[in-house]
Amino acid sequence: MKRRVCVVVTARASYARIKSLLTSITRHCHLELQLVVAASALLDRYGSAIRYIQEDGFEIAARVYMVLEGENLVTMAKSTGLGLVELATAFDNLKPDVVVTIADRYETLATATAASYMNIPLAHVQGGEVTGSIDEKVRHAVTKLSNLHFVATEKAAERVIRMGEDSGTVFVTGCPSIDLAAAVLRKPDLTFDPIDKYAGVGPRLDLSNGYIVVLQHPVTTEYEETRMQIAETLHAVRDPGVPALWFWPNADAGSDGTSKGIRVFRENEALPNVHFFKNMAPEDFLRLIYNSRCIVGNSSVAIRECAFLGVPAVSIGSRQVGRERGRNVIDVRYDRHEIAGAIRHHLSNGRLPSDPLYGDGNAGERMAHVLATVPLQVEKRLTY
Amino acid sequence: MKRRVCVVVTARASYARIKSLLTSITRHCHLELQLVVAASALLDRYGSAIRYIQEDGFEIAARVYMVLEGENLVTMAKSTGLGLVELATAFDNLKPDVVVTIADRYETLATATAASYMNIPLAHVQGGEVTGSIDEKVRHAVTKLSNLHFVATEKAAERVIRMGEDSGTVFVTGCPSIDLAAAVLRKPDLTFDPIDKYAGVGPRLDLSNGYIVVLQHPVTTEYEETRMQIAETLHAVRDPGVPALWFWPNADAGSDGTSKGIRVFRENEALPNVHFFKNMAPEDFLRLIYNSRCIVGNSSVAIRECAFLGVPAVSIGSRQVGRERGRNVIDVRYDRHEIAGAIRHHLSNGRLPSDPLYGDGNAGERMAHVLATVPLQVEKRLTY
Amino acid sequence: MKRRVCVVVTARASYARIKSLLTSITRHCHLELQLVVAASALLDRYGSAIRYIQEDGFEIAARVYMVLEGENLVTMAKSTGLGLVELATAFDNLKPDVVVTIADRYETLATATAASYMNIPLAHVQGGEVTGSIDEKVRHAVTKLSNLHFVATEKAAERVIRMGEDSGTVFVTGCPSIDLAAAVLRKPDLTFDPIDKYAGVGPRLDLSNGYIVVLQHPVTTEYEETRMQIAETLHAVRDPGVPALWFWPNADAGSDGTSKGIRVFRENEALPNVHFFKNMAPEDFLRLIYNSRCIVGNSSVAIRECAFLGVPAVSIGSRQVGRERGRNVIDVRYDRHEIAGAIRHHLSNGRLPSDPLYGDGNAGERMAHVLATVPLQVEKRLTY
Amino acid sequence: MKRRVCVVVTARASYARIKSLLTSITRHCHLELQLVVAASALLDRYGSAIRYIQEDGFEIAARVYMVLEGENLVTMAKSTGLGLVELATAFDNLKPDVVVTIADRYETLATATAASYMNIPLAHVQGGEVTGSIDEKVRHAVTKLSNLHFVATEKAAERVIRMGEDSGTVFVTGCPSIDLAAAVLRKPDLTFDPIDKYAGVGPRLDLSNGYIVVLQHPVTTEYEETRMQIAETLHAVRDPGVPALWFWPNADAGSDGTSKGIRVFRENEALPNVHFFKNMAPEDFLRLIYNSRCIVGNSSVAIRECAFLGVPAVSIGSRQVGRERGRNVIDVRYDRHEIAGAIRHHLSNGRLPSDPLYGDGNAGERMAHVLATVPLQVEKRLTY
Repeated sequence: MKRRVCVVVTARASYARIKSLLTSITRHCHLELQLVVAASALLDRYGSAIRYIQEDGFEIAARVYMVLEGENLVTMAKSTGLGLVELATAFDNLKPDVVVTIADRYETLATATAASYMNIPLAHVQGGEVTGSIDEKVRHAVTKLSNLHFVATEKAAERVIRMGEDSGTVFVTGCPSIDLAAAVLRKPDLTFDPIDKYAGVGPRLDLSNGYIVVLQHPVTTEYEETRMQIAETLHAVRDPGVPALWFWPNADAGSDGTSKGIRVFRENEALPNVHFFKNMAPEDFLRLIYNSRCIVGNSSVAIRECAFLGVPAVSIGSRQVGRERGRNVIDVRYDRHEIAGAIRHHLSNGRLPSDPLYGDGNAGERMAHVLATVPLQVEKRLTY
Repeated sequence: MKRRVCVVVTARASYARIKSLLTSITRHCHLELQLVVAASALLDRYGSAIRYIQEDGFEIAARVYMVLEGENLVTMAKSTGLGLVELATAFDNLKPDVVVTIADRYETLATATAASYMNIPLAHVQGGEVTGSIDEKVRHAVTKLSNLHFVATEKAAERVIRMGEDSGTVFVTGCPSIDLAAAVLRKPDLTFDPIDKYAGVGPRLDLSNGYIVVLQHPVTTEYEETRMQIAETLHAVRDPGVPALWFWPNADAGSDGTSKGIRVFRENEALPNVHFFKNMAPEDFLRLIYNSRCIVGNSSVAIRECAFLGVPAVSIGSRQVGRERGRNVIDVRYDRHEIAGAIRHHLSNGRLPSDPLYGDGNAGERMAHVLATVPLQVEKRLTY
Repeated sequence: MKRRVCVVVTARASYARIKSLLTSITRHCHLELQLVVAASALLDRYGSAIRYIQEDGFEIAARVYMVLEGENLVTMAKSTGLGLVELATAFDNLKPDVVVTIADRYETLATATAASYMNIPLAHVQGGEVTGSIDEKVRHAVTKLSNLHFVATEKAAERVIRMGEDSGTVFVTGCPSIDLAAAVLRKPDLTFDPIDKYAGVGPRLDLSNGYIVVLQHPVTTEYEETRMQIAETLHAVRDPGVPALWFWPNADAGSDGTSKGIRVFRENEALPNVHFFKNMAPEDFLRLIYNSRCIVGNSSVAIRECAFLGVPAVSIGSRQVGRERGRNVIDVRYDRHEIAGAIRHHLSNGRLPSDPLYGDGNAGERMAHVLATVPLQVEKRLTY
Repeated sequence: MKRRVCVVVTARASYARIKSLLTSITRHCHLELQLVVAASALLDRYGSAIRYIQEDGFEIAARVYMVLEGENLVTMAKSTGLGLVELATAFDNLKPDVVVTIADRYETLATATAASYMNIPLAHVQGGEVTGSIDEKVRHAVTKLSNLHFVATEKAAERVIRMGEDSGTVFVTGCPSIDLAAAVLRKPDLTFDPIDKYAGVGPRLDLSNGYIVVLQHPVTTEYEETRMQIAETLHAVRDPGVPALWFWPNADAGSDGTSKGIRVFRENEALPNVHFFKNMAPEDFLRLIYNSRCIVGNSSVAIRECAFLGVPAVSIGSRQVGRERGRNVIDVRYDRHEIAGAIRHHLSNGRLPSDPLYGDGNAGERMAHVLATVPLQVEKRLTY
């Protein structure tokens, strides 16, 4: 009998990150995929990941609406509570043999808690990384609820083990997000015009002499400052005049601050060189980044995928602090001059060689193999 | 301005355990207590802790109903989700400076998650202990969400620090449950007749030649076996004929199995030497235990308070495995003969000297002092 | 293609009432039954209707846990809210063509609201009746949300139409509870000993010279008085010494008051002629009533089924005020003397002829026929 | 002691409608206002009613987040369930003597159910009106849960009474929305430039030769057709070239269809004469309408306030069917030619005299007087 593997995808970014695992599960003869699409992955205004999931041909086992509107800390907590209530129903209907949860978004704890309390073995992807803010708490709490750990780096594995997890349950698979980057590297050409294909908002730009990509998420524990922070980036990106493709942030406390910051700026000042997108098919997104001259913001894509793709990155503020990084990253503060300086540096120095720091492109297959073969159990104990 | 300390009490047992902290907070000139009574602590059929709380004169800042009936794994998960939804409202109304959560019951994770997501510093009492079953996952996950750790033993402190917590945030205060035991030790006489005062169900027993106390909770990940397990204890307790005072279990998945096991046994077989109680004021409860000849079951009281009180204990099954224990404890399996043998051993050997393994009786004061004086912050990072 | 009829059963009593409809749906060649078991129908302590449902061979399409513990007005409101959250998931999964809701329990409004908001046609059983208390509000609100009305009497039909419902949507089918009574009337002998078969609590009684049956539910808007009210009945039932079979009340605000009232009475005073039951298979229950000398309390069974069965009834207090009643009913206040007097009257006068006031025993078939053949629509408008 | 009147405001439109009652309550010496702001009234993307409420100086007693993102029928049902869970907490904390709920939005049923189940008398504003779609079901269901009825017209009163409500509980106060219109009529000049003051999106328009106003909400039971319907209006409004001020719709199932329809149109075709607003202070909004040449869409403002203000209206589709209307309204189907024809007719015929069909401007005061003086009770019974 096939093992039923229930993967819970809660955001556009998580889907891109986990897609190769989904494919590996569907292809594996001893595994059956139960895909639960939840939270902002269901919502149009956060990039409607579900549309890409369906276009990619994955069958959806359950849809779990759980995002309570308000975009503040109270609704973030309540959304997680609701997710827990709803995921318990989904797991009860699906009766999976193992649940897979990804990374460290706040809703991840809903998946992890539901699975733990219902005595379903839990596998966690991307544990053991150090970053900062609320993510850090959530990630390690999920580690303590998990029975299997699929980590990206040796250092991450070491941290998970030091936290008291049995080393026999920790697998250095690399990050599955690199699998997609590896696939893109095999066919790297930008064969589409992003504005033609994805519309977006803003002026039509000439990308033939290169462009930069911007992705800046709100930092949840610094809610009030979000609007000011985004303004610094807007200035730094506008001033040099290089064409910029900018992606809207996810649904988090503060994203309203970010969105509003952008809207207010656009109304008050010209942004002749910036075009905004809400979302893009993951492959198109990576191909766009691969062909860019530099990525700017605080997305983990700049640290992980861009290391592998050799794309220079400007990492702003505290969100990625502590994460292992390659030579492609320059760290700066929320300061338009620092940001602009780092962009200029990258523009004049160009791309870097591929760095397998976060994986070699076979993470999905390795995880599927482990999920199909390890003994599954729910009980565990500190190793010390 | 006083710091507002919000303590969330979710069960009868947690109240007994934390009472000395509540008193120390109310007495401290720089602290203000915000007491939230939630979950089974509000419910009659789990011993109505709220009644004792009110009789003890504590003001209740909010009542949070969150126990979804069903007593299975699905409703346990959903109850936690609901608790998260509801506690977010309570914290939003109360705006505490720090939240205190106790031990490792499943609802604890609702408190910890709500506080973490709302950027309120979280203090955890009784982290770093090793036991088993779902409790183990919950306890360490709460540790990873917490900013302050009040632990009972040096060994617990060491474990919390090894999990990556900053040693400056870990305080070996002793367990506050021992504070109550210490108070009881100063006035140990049983000045009331338990059946007169608390009624309960079953025959009137002559306690003048000694009695034993029984407390057996369901073990949540072994749901199906609960009824069989309780039957073994019932046989072992009935057969020697020593008067036994038996306390009903908490609300957990499986408690219905335990309750039903007891009810079926009572209907089919005589239990002439057993009287059942639902609940008791914490001091009366400890005094009753202090004056007993032996405690039987799987409650942590047998391991913690009874070490301090010098009461012999028979610890059944897996629930307390891994917990540090003193010389008063004999471990046995779910087997009527092993249980009966251990009871006989204790009855003929008598009580033991007090052992300060889990504290010296001043935990509440130490915690209040820390809560009043340490810098409070929400951000944290793994130490390695 | 068969029409999918989703029936939501939320309590033991509703199941007994609707069972003949369930059977008629399963037998109908153009209908498919989707049975949702919810609320107290899932719970052991309210008679575990689900066990009988399974024994009767009905397949369960979804289980919806929604009873929040606390048994007060706040938790009653919250339970309904939760039910709405959960039933929306069930309806989304099942995609019924029509939803059937029964009577007027508080959870009924969750079913009715979920169906209405999801644009699923709603059929209501037992609308148009007049009783009192919160039930009255709920019942007529459900009427206003419903598209089809299956009513018990001509008078009920007239009321539904006067409330502005299109007369073409109102069907006088009789009450399906009478269908079961009619089946029982065809084989009326009490072929089992209730205490042997259902155990229960209390002394073994000799039923050979007749017995009475007691069923008294809390009246939700008179919460505080519940304990006093039940005491009057307890006195009235104990004093004449006729054997009495007493059924525990449902889960409602106040049921704890009722339960506690009974428990306190039992502890303080002897009840040598009363045996308590928690639940019984519906047919056994009706057969027991048919063979009793009198039914006492405030259950609608006394008004409906007992009219048909010809069993004398003493109806206490406000709960059934306003309901059409036959000659078998004597109404009394919460007064031990009035109650006892009415019991005495019935004991000396004996049973009555069958009265088809609430139906002739074919309601289930009539409803199934309507559900299979009427045009189904969700839009509606006041007729005036 | 003052009576505590809890008013629950769930949307921008409801606030405008009820503002005069809020003022009258605060001014009344025997009433205390407890204002609960809930649902989309808290949210930026639906016009952030809360900002206006605060600017108007009302104190907010509780904020209730309840809108689950997804904007489909499932999330609409779940949002109502959540609202019920959350409002029960708010009412339990506030302990109002009476709760006031407004009109017929889907969340209204959450307020009505919470109050009814918690035995709090419920007053309903705007019952007895006939419209269509889901609103119709909700409005009359709320009537059946309500104890006091504040209706706008004699005809509405008659309908409420025919539904079985006691005529002593029905008060023809007029609609409080007219109170605001009456205040605006006393100072009717447009003293601000709407684009300067409220920004919005779209070209700067010259309003000096008149303009029209558009407000079209999705019709929830016709979800799929929403995009097509809005396109008809867009064509009809664009083609004549008269400047048009267009307001975004509320949060309802389908509003995404409406928004998307507008966005797609804007991207594909020029809209040189349309400027879009998200929200406006209620007085500014009414003043803008008063000074317009015509209002187009399906808002009830066109039927109610515009009758009083004498503004010509084009009412599109089924949403307002059945509502009493004055001579200012022309009804048309979802057809660009019909819509355009009706607009042309109004533009050439000009404004009408004020019609007090929905009130004379003193509704708020009348309601406050009733709330302060009538006996409050929760029990009720059908009058037939």
